Amino acid sequence: MAHADPGTVFDIVVLGAGSGGYACALRAAQLGKSVALIEKGKLGGTCLHEGCIPTKALLHAAEVADTARHGSAIGVSTRFDGVDMPAVQRYQQGVVDRLHRGLTGLIATSGITVVEGTGRLVDAHTVEVDGRRYTGTNVVLATGSVPRTLGVEIGGRVVTSEQALTLQELPERIVVIGGSVIGVEFASVWASLGAQVTIVEALDRLAPLEDPVLSKGLERAFRKRSIGFRTGVKFTQVSQDDDRAVVQLEDGSALEADLVLIAVGRGPRSEGMGFEEAGLALDRGWVTTDERLRTNLDGVYAVGDLVAGLQLAHRGFAHGIFVAEDIAGLSPAPVVDEQIPRVTYCEPELASVGLTEAQARERFGDVDVVEYNLAGNGKSQILQTAGLVKLVRQQDGPIVGVHMIGARMGEQIGEAALLVTWEAYPDDVAPLIHAHPTQNESLGEAALALAGKPLHSHA
Amino acid sequence: MAHADPGTVFDIVVLGAGSGGYACALRAAQLGKSVALIEKGKLGGTCLHEGCIPTKALLHAAEVADTARHGSAIGVSTRFDGVDMPAVQRYQQGVVDRLHRGLTGLIATSGITVVEGTGRLVDAHTVEVDGRRYTGTNVVLATGSVPRTLGVEIGGRVVTSEQALTLQELPERIVVIGGSVIGVEFASVWASLGAQVTIVEALDRLAPLEDPVLSKGLERAFRKRSIGFRTGVKFTQVSQDDDRAVVQLEDGSALEADLVLIAVGRGPRSEGMGFEEAGLALDRGWVTTDERLRTNLDGVYAVGDLVAGLQLAHRGFAHGIFVAEDIAGLSPAPVVDEQIPRVTYCEPELASVGLTEAQARERFGDVDVVEYNLAGNGKSQILQTAGLVKLVRQQDGPIVGVHMIGARMGEQIGEAALLVTWEAYPDDVAPLIHAHPTQNESLGEAALALAGKPLHSHA
Repeated sequence: MAHADPGTVFDIVVLGAGSGGYACALRAAQLGKSVALIEKGKLGGTCLHEGCIPTKALLHAAEVADTARHGSAIGVSTRFDGVDMPAVQRYQQGVVDRLHRGLTGLIATSGITVVEGTGRLVDAHTVEVDGRRYTGTNVVLATGSVPRTLGVEIGGRVVTSEQALTLQELPERIVVIGGSVIGVEFASVWASLGAQVTIVEALDRLAPLEDPVLSKGLERAFRKRSIGFRTGVKFTQVSQDDDRAVVQLEDGSALEADLVLIAVGRGPRSEGMGFEEAGLALDRGWVTTDERLRTNLDGVYAVGDLVAGLQLAHRGFAHGIFVAEDIAGLSPAPVVDEQIPRVTYCEPELASVGLTEAQARERFGDVDVVEYNLAGNGKSQILQTAGLVKLVRQQDGPIVGVHMIGARMGEQIGEAALLVTWEAYPDDVAPLIHAHPTQNESLGEAALALAGKPLHSHA
Repeated sequence: MAHADPGTVFDIVVLGAGSGGYACALRAAQLGKSVALIEKGKLGGTCLHEGCIPTKALLHAAEVADTARHGSAIGVSTRFDGVDMPAVQRYQQGVVDRLHRGLTGLIATSGITVVEGTGRLVDAHTVEVDGRRYTGTNVVLATGSVPRTLGVEIGGRVVTSEQALTLQELPERIVVIGGSVIGVEFASVWASLGAQVTIVEALDRLAPLEDPVLSKGLERAFRKRSIGFRTGVKFTQVSQDDDRAVVQLEDGSALEADLVLIAVGRGPRSEGMGFEEAGLALDRGWVTTDERLRTNLDGVYAVGDLVAGLQLAHRGFAHGIFVAEDIAGLSPAPVVDEQIPRVTYCEPELASVGLTEAQARERFGDVDVVEYNLAGNGKSQILQTAGLVKLVRQQDGPIVGVHMIGARMGEQIGEAALLVTWEAYPDDVAPLIHAHPTQNESLGEAALALAGKPLHSHA
């Protein structure tokens, strides 16, 4: 791609073209800034190539399998006859390629100088790539994250999410270590496609960062789907030979599998790029920033997964846009993790924003809570999904948390995030008219109930 | 059900237990009012028994058929082998029955006096059912609507939506007269299930009440699905014999079919119930009301489809709640049709709220418009759906219209309605973080573009 003239000083040098980096570059270019965007892999980063997009394509394939498996229960003669993993991957890659072409086109017409290669931070104004130095008035670090492995050796039958996306065959028995977002998503996919799956989670419930009501609903659904899970138990060892892998648990039991997925979270990608040598402050690998995403080095920012907090592509986008606008002097409001929507795309989906009930009680003391069961929601009944919408409000105050579970309920997160971000009161939301019969209506019903005027709620 | 003592005077007598009537009764009971709820059929009315709910169950069966038909394109070996209509109807009826039981339970525990039978308005305070008189301080008319037929005789091969819901076999060739909501929904179902469908619409486009950009998208999608349509042409006659039905068009051509659906809208159910005799003001059958839903008879209100305007169950709910609160002296704000979300649940779905671009230009003069193509939306690409989000704002003013098309996009209507109802400015919406990768994100992207800071939009 473009090579800058030696001696060019950019307004901004961005290291990493994932969600945080490219969003920053695009917004900065819109604002008239000159930008160098450095990337060793492909534009789009983890989210587009090894994260959000390919996993959601897999999850859709899983949904298609489940749909065809259960059609006859509603009078539609359908069959599911198995899965052709290479063909699924062609579909998955087709989606990624299309979006990648779109992104590449956007960046190509934006005036951004794209630099291919591995960047190394030299000082607060300089990033070196293959011996060539790129100088910026500001530097934005956006190198993202990598899967954690807790010391387990990856290879053969033991994989992280990266290899899990490229399986050429569906294993018969799979153990997933980790019951958070990545773990339950893959478990859901593989169970739908026909594998026997067992999840091992060290904490006492699946989706342990969510409000417990969602964990309970998810565990019930997974039980019904014959997805096994062992919670409250750590693994001590993972071994493998030609025939199988074995996961030893601390309670002395062991699980055999054809494949083991290590899904114990992601850590910052901050090593080997000169960060420490340049004097950048790190905390267990995360780049330390203030709420305006400024690091200890004057003029250097960090965005996205590199900054401790929620690891989500849309947080990266928001960080990137924020930093571009901050550098341009627009004084944007900081990005607040509590206003960031969270979706786990397993079946059933989990979606939440704001505080759990426990967090709200800790912060506000008394809170009011309502749970609207999707049994009363027509569209959810049509989809034959169980679930609920839970709203948490500060007593006599605004809605501070929304927690949802059910097939497709992830798509309700937009209105939910809006309510929490705008600090809506139930009384303000109750008169809003929700379309019947949608799943969206369940948010309206929950708000009506919380405002003391339930319509289709059973007490 | 309950019989009131002779001489009992209720606070409110509600005639009709559909969406508008039962919502009014429930809310009034919550507010401590004594209520008689009169219904000749089943609690829940058209929406639950012959409208929204059963049609959406059919549309889900259609989605399942399409999903199984196309699975192999994404690597999932699935098959669609036809449809068992009686079994589909058992599913459909199961959903209706479950919701009906829920509603019946809610009403049974609410203290409402339910009266079974056909009511007749005697005067502004009295409804007579089977010779027994029910007296109320207020009377609320909620008798709903019935399919229009434009003089065509219904029977045999010629049906309205009511009979269309109970077909025991899927006809091979179907002509649908009417390309608005009901027509395109049934056309979509039947085409998915395997019938050859042709729509006849007198106006110049399908979904003629929507912004033309949605009509264009729908027509493109229907063409791709081999759903035929003839727009801008009226039918002159429908005839049938044992072998077929024939629809004559005004241009001299004729369409042959095994079944003809008359889907030319619904009219008010206001005849034969004493309305005119009691002195109630009607306009072409609709009950005339002011914005507080008061009729010309003191103390008599009308709600839902009986009042000219959008014919939607959630408008009925809102009307019913409004009237109950109005009678209780809570001074609620009137229900405004422009803030009511509209969803057409065909494939692809249409969803809109507020003003079309043309309506906005007429009202405000200059407007700003943005169209966000779902080609840039990851989840929509995964679902392999085409579509868009169109936002219309008053120049330098709030968002006054949202128009969407695409698979499943109906579920985005909650946030859209909220933006229009709360008169949100694009600049207020742009910083709201939308979850990636959801279809919901497309609303955020459209708002970013309208605020002049597009992220994933191609210019």
